[in-house]
Amino acid sequence: MTFMEKLSAAWKTNNSLVCVGLDPDRKKLPAGVLSLPHPIFAFNKAIIDATHQDVCCYKPQAAYYAGQGADDELLMTMEYLRSSYPEIPVILDAKRADIGNTTKMYAMEAFDRYGADAVTVNPYMGMDALKPFLDYAEKGVVVLCRTSNAGAKEIQELKLEDGSFLYQRVAQLISGPWNYNHNTMLVAGATFPQELGEIRRIVGSTPLLVPGIGAQGGDLEGVLKHGLTADGTGLVINSSRGIIYASSGDDFAEKAGMACRALKEAINAHR
Amino acid sequence: MTFMEKLSAAWKTNNSLVCVGLDPDRKKLPAGVLSLPHPIFAFNKAIIDATHQDVCCYKPQAAYYAGQGADDELLMTMEYLRSSYPEIPVILDAKRADIGNTTKMYAMEAFDRYGADAVTVNPYMGMDALKPFLDYAEKGVVVLCRTSNAGAKEIQELKLEDGSFLYQRVAQLISGPWNYNHNTMLVAGATFPQELGEIRRIVGSTPLLVPGIGAQGGDLEGVLKHGLTADGTGLVINSSRGIIYASSGDDFAEKAGMACRALKEAINAHR
Repeated sequence: MTFMEKLSAAWKTNNSLVCVGLDPDRKKLPAGVLSLPHPIFAFNKAIIDATHQDVCCYKPQAAYYAGQGADDELLMTMEYLRSSYPEIPVILDAKRADIGNTTKMYAMEAFDRYGADAVTVNPYMGMDALKPFLDYAEKGVVVLCRTSNAGAKEIQELKLEDGSFLYQRVAQLISGPWNYNHNTMLVAGATFPQELGEIRRIVGSTPLLVPGIGAQGGDLEGVLKHGLTADGTGLVINSSRGIIYASSGDDFAEKAGMACRALKEAINAHR
Repeated sequence: MTFMEKLSAAWKTNNSLVCVGLDPDRKKLPAGVLSLPHPIFAFNKAIIDATHQDVCCYKPQAAYYAGQGADDELLMTMEYLRSSYPEIPVILDAKRADIGNTTKMYAMEAFDRYGADAVTVNPYMGMDALKPFLDYAEKGVVVLCRTSNAGAKEIQELKLEDGSFLYQRVAQLISGPWNYNHNTMLVAGATFPQELGEIRRIVGSTPLLVPGIGAQGGDLEGVLKHGLTADGTGLVINSSRGIIYASSGDDFAEKAGMACRALKEAINAHR
């Protein structure tokens, strides 16, 4: 199954648009987990076991593993997901891009080393810098378009000579010429639901990865109003801190499961 | 010493603007190296020992280590550089950017885990996504502006409503508001010397990292004509394949040393 097929199936089977972001910070892990031999993996495993029936996707954030020297625990997490819940697609959030030869190495990192179903990438260098990712037709390539951070507008809302914004041009490219293998998605932050609606108009039914719900203060109702496709899907709504740190005690997994179900239901109430 | 002070000193001491890109691909390593216990590190070490008197900088490309599962050999390379040649600055070529919390983890990766003096980053998400890097005042932050790949123009030469190109606006930001700690540099590809000259006019004496010489076919004379600052420096001219693969035999290090010196001399003939 391709990434897109897996995603469509998971949307339906779990009746959920929720993606859980696996961004484990050692400083925030419960004491009971920190004493285990692979605390980051143990934390992820417990979160995954508690949420897998209510998600359409998982999204490990590469920076947390790279910054903490925990590449092995990312690998363990990816292997656990693949063996225990092969029906749930996994997006490695890495935001990579480089010249062709080098991007091939990043594609190997995401798809061969870690076995991700999809990866996030950065559009600034143009399509040839992303081609080694895009050429994996069965994998998903999630390209930054309008990100959820406040400073995103500094570049992404620069006005072009035809009066459009840069992020709109980028949306056209991602869903048009860059989508030659029908495997692209776009990142559109929940903190800017109007812009997310603009993107939806441009890209048709191309799926959107939506960060910014929860700790970042995104507007869930606005996201659904502007972002859902006609069949009530088309969105992968990520929550990281709001779910994985729902409790800082030893009941963290149970509370994460509850927070994930609550988000799924809050979303489904508007579908 | 800050990165910028180290770079200025290395330009002068070694009388060189050459940066050697450490992009080791296992498939291209000489047979004699492949039989050693840490072949990538052994290869890098030999290249470094043969070139250290003729460079202003080294630039390991993170993708090669990530894609080949060789994080430990990147660490060994960084530690070797720091202990043996502490006067030569090292740029980790990673092209990172993410939202603030996450970028902090990438800054930890580059500066704490690997001990790099500088890191390359991507401007698409705006300044707040780069702030955790920029806040390390003693470190260098090398921001993509006009990259060396053919497809770069697809985004970087989009025309803004005031008639300027996107890369020109990005150059203003990098050398202006983003340079609050006087620690930024810009990436300007050797394959577009005219655009590199435009960037030089915009950024004053802010140093440029110039990839694209050698295998990518960049125009060395054009780069020097358009890119040198008044004191004959201001450029960090990278060559990877042209130096590290100067020979595929067991004389690779000797030939790398010769190729590095030849490039240094070809550059100095025009300074």
